[in-house]
Amino acid sequence: MDSALQYARDHADRFVEELKAWLRIPSISTDPEHDAQTRRAADWLAQRLRDAGLKTVDVLETGSAESPGHPVVYAEHHVSDDAPTVLVYGHYDVQPPDPLELWDQDPFEPVEVDGDLVARGAADDKGQAFMHVKAVEAYLQSGDGLPVNLKMMVEGEEENGSVHLAPFIEANRDRLAADVVLVSDTALFAPGVPSIAYGLRGLAYVEVELEGPARDLHSGVYGGGVENPINALARMIADLHDDDHRVTVEGFYDDVRELTDEERAGFRELPFDEARWQEEAGVEATKTEAGYSVLEGTTARPTLDVNGIWGGYTGKGAKTVLPSKATAKISCRLVPDQTPDDITEKLRRHFETHAPETMRLTFRNLHGGHGAIVDTSAPAMQAAAEALEGVFGQRPHFTREGGSIPVVADFKRLLGLDTVLMGFGLDSDAIHSPNERFGLDRFHQGIEASVRFLDAYARQAEDR
Amino acid sequence: MDSALQYARDHADRFVEELKAWLRIPSISTDPEHDAQTRRAADWLAQRLRDAGLKTVDVLETGSAESPGHPVVYAEHHVSDDAPTVLVYGHYDVQPPDPLELWDQDPFEPVEVDGDLVARGAADDKGQAFMHVKAVEAYLQSGDGLPVNLKMMVEGEEENGSVHLAPFIEANRDRLAADVVLVSDTALFAPGVPSIAYGLRGLAYVEVELEGPARDLHSGVYGGGVENPINALARMIADLHDDDHRVTVEGFYDDVRELTDEERAGFRELPFDEARWQEEAGVEATKTEAGYSVLEGTTARPTLDVNGIWGGYTGKGAKTVLPSKATAKISCRLVPDQTPDDITEKLRRHFETHAPETMRLTFRNLHGGHGAIVDTSAPAMQAAAEALEGVFGQRPHFTREGGSIPVVADFKRLLGLDTVLMGFGLDSDAIHSPNERFGLDRFHQGIEASVRFLDAYARQAEDR
Repeated sequence: MDSALQYARDHADRFVEELKAWLRIPSISTDPEHDAQTRRAADWLAQRLRDAGLKTVDVLETGSAESPGHPVVYAEHHVSDDAPTVLVYGHYDVQPPDPLELWDQDPFEPVEVDGDLVARGAADDKGQAFMHVKAVEAYLQSGDGLPVNLKMMVEGEEENGSVHLAPFIEANRDRLAADVVLVSDTALFAPGVPSIAYGLRGLAYVEVELEGPARDLHSGVYGGGVENPINALARMIADLHDDDHRVTVEGFYDDVRELTDEERAGFRELPFDEARWQEEAGVEATKTEAGYSVLEGTTARPTLDVNGIWGGYTGKGAKTVLPSKATAKISCRLVPDQTPDDITEKLRRHFETHAPETMRLTFRNLHGGHGAIVDTSAPAMQAAAEALEGVFGQRPHFTREGGSIPVVADFKRLLGLDTVLMGFGLDSDAIHSPNERFGLDRFHQGIEASVRFLDAYARQAEDR
Repeated sequence: MDSALQYARDHADRFVEELKAWLRIPSISTDPEHDAQTRRAADWLAQRLRDAGLKTVDVLETGSAESPGHPVVYAEHHVSDDAPTVLVYGHYDVQPPDPLELWDQDPFEPVEVDGDLVARGAADDKGQAFMHVKAVEAYLQSGDGLPVNLKMMVEGEEENGSVHLAPFIEANRDRLAADVVLVSDTALFAPGVPSIAYGLRGLAYVEVELEGPARDLHSGVYGGGVENPINALARMIADLHDDDHRVTVEGFYDDVRELTDEERAGFRELPFDEARWQEEAGVEATKTEAGYSVLEGTTARPTLDVNGIWGGYTGKGAKTVLPSKATAKISCRLVPDQTPDDITEKLRRHFETHAPETMRLTFRNLHGGHGAIVDTSAPAMQAAAEALEGVFGQRPHFTREGGSIPVVADFKRLLGLDTVLMGFGLDSDAIHSPNERFGLDRFHQGIEASVRFLDAYARQAEDR
């Protein structure tokens, strides 16, 4: 391991330049106009994996002729039938960069600012996925050799709901067989405060469209005589929360696994600086479900947010239109044991029940993902803790994350595998926002942690 | 008058072709990118007025260097100091054509469909303004000579709140001196049912923006901890009406002139076909302020409608953003004696009071206009009634219109003039909507009515 660590230190600058080249490829998976670029990002990665020395590297298609998907970059390096197998997962696709005008620069022309690499995808997830590529290279090119059998799958649809990933995993069960999954797509609890996420939230994302008049009407001629779909949709949205900021959808909380007293005590012990959190979020106050702290509200409680809304005239000036339609994108963050299918159905019933009878409701299920909770005493979790302690000089906290990595639930369900979430992001990385960034110190710490994890996990397996 | 009427009949087809040429010019006044086209529409009209034989024709600038306006096309033809003077008003600007995909054709390439001319501006107001141009041509070119002194002003900012018109009228008081104003920018009560509008609604149009987080946030990381500005704006919009569909803004109804029993009786006598109205509006049910009919609600009661809303991610797919901002365009239709300034201030106070304390509210006054009521017994109103009876063979109804023609209030306030609203539109003309249209039969009836009005009004003045 020591040669690998030294190799990573010696080639640190080159690793950053390589990452920049990857970040220049706008692999926006949700936008069909970027399909060619998305594939280019996959091909680019495959070549780096070959350069790293991995024996098998493939760009595998997903989806079908009717519903083509972005490819999965798959690599494999077998060491010994006796060694344990680690499956590293990441994603090479990125969020759309808009609103573009709020970026200080081109989102796809990475620049270094105060030690951070600023670009769309810097932290989520190209920067973090690339750490493992470089850790593997460090083992294979330094002469140390890999201590475990390594498999790596980097997908291209994470920001679009990983719609073709579960079928891909099912179809490749044998190929993907492993002992544990390692993912870096989460955050450190705070700068210099190492943590391992043991919980993730799920997601149910829908679109609701309300159509009133069959065409846009003149608000002078018709105003006062017909119901306005924007006003009606606004009422429906307003009614989605009660005064305690609890979601009013019937049965919404039925399957929520309540926090244990122990967990709540753990949350209170974390060095959480609420004032700083507010500053990072750019808000003047917090707003949580009654009875829960901000940390609990954002990681261990389900939510409902409108992600987008549009209707009527949205251009310059004043168009006196009484619009035909109004549409909202609405998503719920879920916690175990809520399921996306169940919550989506409850949302559907809610909107169908509450839509004005005289309007046409269209309800679209855009996507969903399961939440997850992992046992913190598992060998791989303890190996991760050891790795982080080696890098940071202190034992990591076990935390929960508010975001969704639906594939974690898929790995459990389809492959029977637990996932170690060893992420190096920070909430201030502005992922999904303008000026997304990733600290280069954390990029290098992540490479070292990946090297240390593979070593620690191999020893754990030997000991057993 | 008879030669003029014969001339109009003889040249009917040419008049239509000329109107088509005008409709081909996309004079969208609210869109700065169309400024050159808007001016071209003015110049085109000026040339037609010169061709008609009017002695003085000018394209007069409006606004100032800091706030340039679209020009007013002004024409004048003096007959005799003893004759009364009629000021004809119209507008050559049109609404934006979007949503473009709902048009059956190019909105600026007029086509004849089932006797209708289909194009943006066909009815509102190029088609109707052009009727008077052709009526004047008929008098001047047929040898009859005009029976009145005629002034004509056709502005280019009606669809953008006529922002520079009141200062223009003030600056041109002497030039515009007249006995009455004649406007065709309203509708017949129904096909074949002639009517004269004696009431118009005003308008107060504002934009409300709510900003929560200083930037777009990841809904997984922050969802459940901060208030969402779309959800908050939706709540504010929902609270703008009570269960009786009355507007909840404090003092909103203070200055509303209630309908008299006589007026309400008049409304009931009108041949109003609610099923047909619903069909034209493309709605499955009506929705009015409790206690008022559809006809009352759409013409004689004030309203509040959201004209547009936007915020967050509105593209394809599912972006899990917790947005920084949400914005709505909101307008009220006003009735006498509500004033746009007062209602705008009441809206401002309402939103300032109801906005969440932790969010930044931006309130923009986009524009406003006064409503109007004209005495139906005035000589010009009776002359209009005579003219319509001549065209249709039946006495017209006196009605109120739901739309706004703010200049009508300006003519009263600044020039002391009443306005005769002798419009030939129909609610089914789809003004402000895709596939706007104007019946060619009504175009020709309007020309005849204009010829007859000028004659009748000249006789009325002689009689006095």
